[in-house]
Amino acid sequence: MPGQSRVRHDLTAAAVELFLRKGYDETTVDEIAEAAGVARRTFFRHFRTKEDVVFPDHDDCLKRVEQSLADADPTQPPLAAVAVATHLVLAMYTDDPDASVQRYELTRHVTALRDRELIATSQYQRVFTSYLNRRSGGQPHTRLPDEVAAAAVVAAHNHVLRQWLRDGGKDDVHAELDRALAAVDASLGPWLAGRPSSEPTTDDQVVVVIMRRGTPMWRVVQEVETAAAG
Amino acid sequence: MPGQSRVRHDLTAAAVELFLRKGYDETTVDEIAEAAGVARRTFFRHFRTKEDVVFPDHDDCLKRVEQSLADADPTQPPLAAVAVATHLVLAMYTDDPDASVQRYELTRHVTALRDRELIATSQYQRVFTSYLNRRSGGQPHTRLPDEVAAAAVVAAHNHVLRQWLRDGGKDDVHAELDRALAAVDASLGPWLAGRPSSEPTTDDQVVVVIMRRGTPMWRVVQEVETAAAG
Repeated sequence: MPGQSRVRHDLTAAAVELFLRKGYDETTVDEIAEAAGVARRTFFRHFRTKEDVVFPDHDDCLKRVEQSLADADPTQPPLAAVAVATHLVLAMYTDDPDASVQRYELTRHVTALRDRELIATSQYQRVFTSYLNRRSGGQPHTRLPDEVAAAAVVAAHNHVLRQWLRDGGKDDVHAELDRALAAVDASLGPWLAGRPSSEPTTDDQVVVVIMRRGTPMWRVVQEVETAAAG
Repeated sequence: MPGQSRVRHDLTAAAVELFLRKGYDETTVDEIAEAAGVARRTFFRHFRTKEDVVFPDHDDCLKRVEQSLADADPTQPPLAAVAVATHLVLAMYTDDPDASVQRYELTRHVTALRDRELIATSQYQRVFTSYLNRRSGGQPHTRLPDEVAAAAVVAAHNHVLRQWLRDGGKDDVHAELDRALAAVDASLGPWLAGRPSSEPTTDDQVVVVIMRRGTPMWRVVQEVETAAAG
């Protein structure tokens, strides 16, 4: 479990077990510390609040995500760098599937915890948006696609993660994430790359292309390019 | 100001003014009630907490959004129905631009309020996702595009709203939202409609595509795919 000390892990495991058995509101920090065999002040050396204890270390993960984006090859497509960072977030859950599944159960029943998870999620989205902004040179007109793409990536991540947690943490969710991100990229990649603008151009000549239904797309593109150049 | 009583509006205005002048933590409910010329218990008839007072009535708006989606014409594209609902959310802010701009200032400085706004936002996203799920017949393979599209719509809404608030609440942000949602639709509409693959079809009917010279190639591809799917 990279980035997590043993004590931290034991406290989390004890807390999740108590929350599920006794209820979240009914469990005290003292009981958690006792169950993990440490002193109350040790608890507070690792976590600020009772809520913090049941979360993966989002602060730590956020730093890894930021570092990964800072180190990303500037010649690779921006969404590819974001995909790598997204796998780091997912790994936080897949490193310990049992704990993640238990935590998910808890999050479903305790609103305060669900809200916390949401806020953590929004921080990744903010970091992704700001990376995409940087990559697109901070142009005002790219801010919308950057922001939409970051939201789409986070939604795709959350979708596959939630599905995996519901299924009990089996299967290769990283491969599933790759497929989901490829689908996002297929839809949003062109817009992000600044190729979309659905603004009509000022030139209003018309091109007519007639082809058989079923013509491969590469052939359509070629025909249109030829016609447009003519 | 539809759905808001006069007293409610006065309480909000007084609270925002006090929060900005004295600070959020330093302002009490008693002071807010006094500034609005009402009793403390009147405050609590309208709001549960001090946080609630500075927010637009998200509960009420969420009901309007759900109703609008329940009433939506089932023959119109799902994203068009979501767009209508999104304008209802935006209208909550544009109904009173000055109050919205002041509230935005506040939200930028008080983390608790920013978090609250985020949680409210996530509720719209959840409602949009569930509408899109319904419209796509709840097939497992449409859940990812549904979820991504809902996130994209909310991100686009938040983007234009934030820009408008930063610019002081001038301009026609509803027209801006239409443009942003059209761009989202252009990118995600085909995926959502289950038409993403550019697999050639077996049918050999002829497709005629007419477009302006200068139309971006991604748009041509989209048109051809739509025509071929039709």
